[in-house]
Amino acid sequence: MGKLYAVGFGPGGYEHMTAKAIDVIKNADIVTGYTTYVEMLRKFFPEKEYVATPMTKEMDRCRMAVDLAAEGKTVAMVSSGDSGIYGMAGILLEIANEKKADVEIETVPGVTAASAAASILGAPLMHDFTIISLSDLMTPYSLIMKRVDCAGQGDFIVCLYNPKSKKRADYVEKAAEILMKYRDGKTPVGVVRHAGREEESSYITTLDAVKDAPIDMFSIVIVGNSNTYVRDGKMITPRGYEDKYGFANVE
Amino acid sequence: MGKLYAVGFGPGGYEHMTAKAIDVIKNADIVTGYTTYVEMLRKFFPEKEYVATPMTKEMDRCRMAVDLAAEGKTVAMVSSGDSGIYGMAGILLEIANEKKADVEIETVPGVTAASAAASILGAPLMHDFTIISLSDLMTPYSLIMKRVDCAGQGDFIVCLYNPKSKKRADYVEKAAEILMKYRDGKTPVGVVRHAGREEESSYITTLDAVKDAPIDMFSIVIVGNSNTYVRDGKMITPRGYEDKYGFANVE
Repeated sequence: MGKLYAVGFGPGGYEHMTAKAIDVIKNADIVTGYTTYVEMLRKFFPEKEYVATPMTKEMDRCRMAVDLAAEGKTVAMVSSGDSGIYGMAGILLEIANEKKADVEIETVPGVTAASAAASILGAPLMHDFTIISLSDLMTPYSLIMKRVDCAGQGDFIVCLYNPKSKKRADYVEKAAEILMKYRDGKTPVGVVRHAGREEESSYITTLDAVKDAPIDMFSIVIVGNSNTYVRDGKMITPRGYEDKYGFANVE
Repeated sequence: MGKLYAVGFGPGGYEHMTAKAIDVIKNADIVTGYTTYVEMLRKFFPEKEYVATPMTKEMDRCRMAVDLAAEGKTVAMVSSGDSGIYGMAGILLEIANEKKADVEIETVPGVTAASAAASILGAPLMHDFTIISLSDLMTPYSLIMKRVDCAGQGDFIVCLYNPKSKKRADYVEKAAEILMKYRDGKTPVGVVRHAGREEESSYITTLDAVKDAPIDMFSIVIVGNSNTYVRDGKMITPRGYEDKYGFANVE
């Protein structure tokens, strides 16, 4: 029986890879993934055999990975962040079921983009939050924005994945408008581009100014809850809604 | 200027620690944290100097860590999961601000419990989700359950942290009742105890049977969305709501 690992290697740098992700990649017969991810890993593990495929070919890549593992090879399918969050783990399980492939699939969890972005911004995720992808490739626009509305109603911190593309240039702004039905326009919003990679940069703005923020497809956007504040350039959400420690409304 | 790291070491085993977390702990002058976490790490890094404090003393522990760093020491404050999610990162920043301490604080992100639990259950987090803590120590019960309701309305996958304690024995059941206003009682629910540790175990049940599930304070509970299904003992959420790949409603 072959072995297929769905490996999340975290935000991008070697330092945020887990010991297991490093070990699995080092010992795999074949490492496969979207071209951009393969190129990131080639720097750290130059001796490996890689099979890279373009982004739009992910179903083909998953089928290939399952087939290679069924032949008895040890295959690592890599992706950034956590492979269990909007990742390849689910597709691999679905394809292996469909093919009735004699393959053992194991997911190696990684540091998801929300954690990486939050660590750069300060500590925005100290309380309940949602992760919402603004990609409408496979989810209707109406459902995405309904979720943003629910997150607003519940005063959740909101992490937006895939915030912007050329076709979806105004989705972040629309989401901000919805959230402003429930929270102040001055609510802090953090944007991190290329979290954990060499090109990393971050930017803190507010809900009502988000339309002018430098957001692109390599960004994660984190909108604070009603208690989030900024001090000394750090975005901080207090741990609770009851002021036991005397920290609430510290600004 | 001293250096203080808020280090998340992931679910508990060495394998899911990041390269940076390992490096920071190895090079710290002092490692501090809640007693249980310190004992976990002592097995992996027996030579280090540790200062352990009981769980309820976390504010004292954070003040001590800031003071030690202000003296010029390199301090690693450790916690399981990601230190930026319901972790120590926010408290450390707040205390350092309060004390005007000359300390550089850096958060080292880790694998959060939701990722660890999901990797064991299958692939439940392939779509938008919420993380909600059921602890009412610092958040009113009414707000917690309002958030569960919002998560239900938005058809979010729901990850429940701190699902149960002696005083909050029925909160998971209450949350399940709220979610059943919006989704079927047969919706899969995954429970993982001690994710990523030696004692790890997992259990898959349904919303309407959750009251009989083995859930305790060491558990993470993941409730699927309306599309989540179980096959071959794995809990899988399809990636989208539009059936481009012919996988929707596969059961």
